Amino acid sequence: MNLPLGYRYSATYAGIRREARDDLALIVSGAPAAAAAVFTQNRVQAAPVKLCRQHLRASRGQVGAILVNAGNANCATRTGDRVALESCRAVARQLKLPPAQVLPASTGVIGVELDFTLIQKALPQLLAGLAEDRFSDVARAIMTTDLVPKEAFGEFRLRRGTVRIAGMTKGSGMIQPRMATTLGFVLTDASIPVAKLREILKRANERSYSRLSVDGDTSTNDTLVLVANGCSGVRPDPKEYAAVEEAVAIVAETLARQIARDGEGAKKLVTIDVTGAANNDAAAQIARAIANSPLVKTAIAGSDPNWGRILSAAGNAGVVFDPAKVDIAIQDVTVCRGGLAARFSENELKNRLDQAECTIHFQIRGKGKGAARFWTCDLTEGYIRINASYRT
Amino acid sequence: MNLPLGYRYSATYAGIRREARDDLALIVSGAPAAAAAVFTQNRVQAAPVKLCRQHLRASRGQVGAILVNAGNANCATRTGDRVALESCRAVARQLKLPPAQVLPASTGVIGVELDFTLIQKALPQLLAGLAEDRFSDVARAIMTTDLVPKEAFGEFRLRRGTVRIAGMTKGSGMIQPRMATTLGFVLTDASIPVAKLREILKRANERSYSRLSVDGDTSTNDTLVLVANGCSGVRPDPKEYAAVEEAVAIVAETLARQIARDGEGAKKLVTIDVTGAANNDAAAQIARAIANSPLVKTAIAGSDPNWGRILSAAGNAGVVFDPAKVDIAIQDVTVCRGGLAARFSENELKNRLDQAECTIHFQIRGKGKGAARFWTCDLTEGYIRINASYRT
Repeated sequence: MNLPLGYRYSATYAGIRREARDDLALIVSGAPAAAAAVFTQNRVQAAPVKLCRQHLRASRGQVGAILVNAGNANCATRTGDRVALESCRAVARQLKLPPAQVLPASTGVIGVELDFTLIQKALPQLLAGLAEDRFSDVARAIMTTDLVPKEAFGEFRLRRGTVRIAGMTKGSGMIQPRMATTLGFVLTDASIPVAKLREILKRANERSYSRLSVDGDTSTNDTLVLVANGCSGVRPDPKEYAAVEEAVAIVAETLARQIARDGEGAKKLVTIDVTGAANNDAAAQIARAIANSPLVKTAIAGSDPNWGRILSAAGNAGVVFDPAKVDIAIQDVTVCRGGLAARFSENELKNRLDQAECTIHFQIRGKGKGAARFWTCDLTEGYIRINASYRT
Repeated sequence: MNLPLGYRYSATYAGIRREARDDLALIVSGAPAAAAAVFTQNRVQAAPVKLCRQHLRASRGQVGAILVNAGNANCATRTGDRVALESCRAVARQLKLPPAQVLPASTGVIGVELDFTLIQKALPQLLAGLAEDRFSDVARAIMTTDLVPKEAFGEFRLRRGTVRIAGMTKGSGMIQPRMATTLGFVLTDASIPVAKLREILKRANERSYSRLSVDGDTSTNDTLVLVANGCSGVRPDPKEYAAVEEAVAIVAETLARQIARDGEGAKKLVTIDVTGAANNDAAAQIARAIANSPLVKTAIAGSDPNWGRILSAAGNAGVVFDPAKVDIAIQDVTVCRGGLAARFSENELKNRLDQAECTIHFQIRGKGKGAARFWTCDLTEGYIRINASYRT
């Protein structure tokens, strides 16, 4: 898969995290690019989230570079706002950009001061390392408790030529993005005006990051940025925007799914489909309630087709439905029909649940057309081990 | 502590659960008693919950007996309604009560048929075993994954004489009662009219079971019943109802705290106080968000004073507050002041967190008078072990 044209990438170790692996990364567009972003809905917002919002407003969605660090969330700190601003300014000076065209993003521990001098000292090496083929180095640098880097690519023909799209993301815990998750960057070389880009991101986000939960905790730093630099020289026809949106959404979905699969301690990716609800929002609420139930998630970990927990979790979604009209299938095996136990071979289904991917289909019989797909993971002892000792 | 006058208790093994320990219990009042109850808000409600509601309506709050089984929730089953009704009728016949004066309650696995013949066969022994001193046998019979029985007692003087109060409860997982939790029975020998009893229960519940979460999952069977049989011959003065309410609330709080302490896999009881919120509901919402955050709960398990997770969890409560005005204390040590890290000895606090009881105080500085106390427990690998194999 080819990377989008006109972007350069770099990553280095600035000493922000204890472990000596890259923790500071930069994405630079060779041409002025349009950008749209969605952010966490947490009431507590990290300094880079606030500044990123300000910069996008001040620049009217023009962006030249994205500066990201891992190992420190730059949230709830005395000097956070200043460190975020100084960091963007330093990058802007070197790249000869207005400071508002540099977007900051941070991920890591909350409440610990981020030392600007570490970033300052690492900048020369970071800039010197910029190269078109270092996309994956950035994807690795932004990892925290992630076990694997997360990337997704697309390439598609429009009438006027081919455009490319590449996305990266990170995230493993504190994951229940309400708008976006932890960090995600999706880049394309198509030429798309800012207003259109915002629409595309909003809808793509709704069916990807907003349908994802690892542990029900929404981070203070969630940021998803979509950048279009036009370096392909291809501007979509008005009729082609639906296809562009579909391509962006597929990349975003692929990234979101990778986050669920790499959820802290997770052994299994769980895909939850809810159909037959009154509307899509109601379906999503039911799916979210199932995805966030620790009893459902531990049952999946134990390969236990305990559909009673699924029905009970759905009952807590705050959505009106008739339990007597509910069918539930696990791994395509109907385990509950009309709200009652269906006949199935428990041993056979247990074996099927030992796979790395599990599906739950919660279907309400009737006239409702509301549907939603949601991703989560199982809850294992690994989640506890990781999070009982994250800082120590 | 003396038990309330006029109640008899019995428990036996009916073969409902695999393990051979008591799973069927009966509480009988010697005199017609007034009763009030609160139930789960889950959309999916077990047969005994629905029938209990009907019986209380039909009898206008008069009750003679409570029949409880553990090991089977009698929820989402074909024959559930009939089994619950037949069970109550069988007990009513023997005790010469109208069937509506027998209240049913069940707890255990969802979606498995409850066999009425087991109850029918066990009834003679259950009735023969009725005795005034078997309160604790019932408290033990209703346990599922509970490690310890949960009881609370009170005795207090009113102008016209002494009245007694005794409560029992069970619950360890699927615990986030929105109205009541899993099962709780509070008995008194005071004479209290039904309407008054309902008020007392509503308010006592609001500061006890409704302020409790083990895992954020609300059960399909939650039932809390308050019974007053008047056998002390003491009817409170109108002015004394506040004292009665306080006594009932203290018993209910004691029971709720015991559930949190015995949460599945829990090593620590966590008490969360939120103060300075706009109102009590807002405070409770913040407290609930902190109590339900798996990241906060695993940090407590690891004795990690990670206040950033507490602040972030509060930020997800859906309540407006200014993070810059937040102080957080863990075990009475201020770890966050004005939304920023406070100075404290991390090692010393870690040691303090190794205790069996932990406190979190989330204080919003300002004019708000809203306050709430909430109970939860830490999240350990034990929770996963228990729930990945509950049915198997």
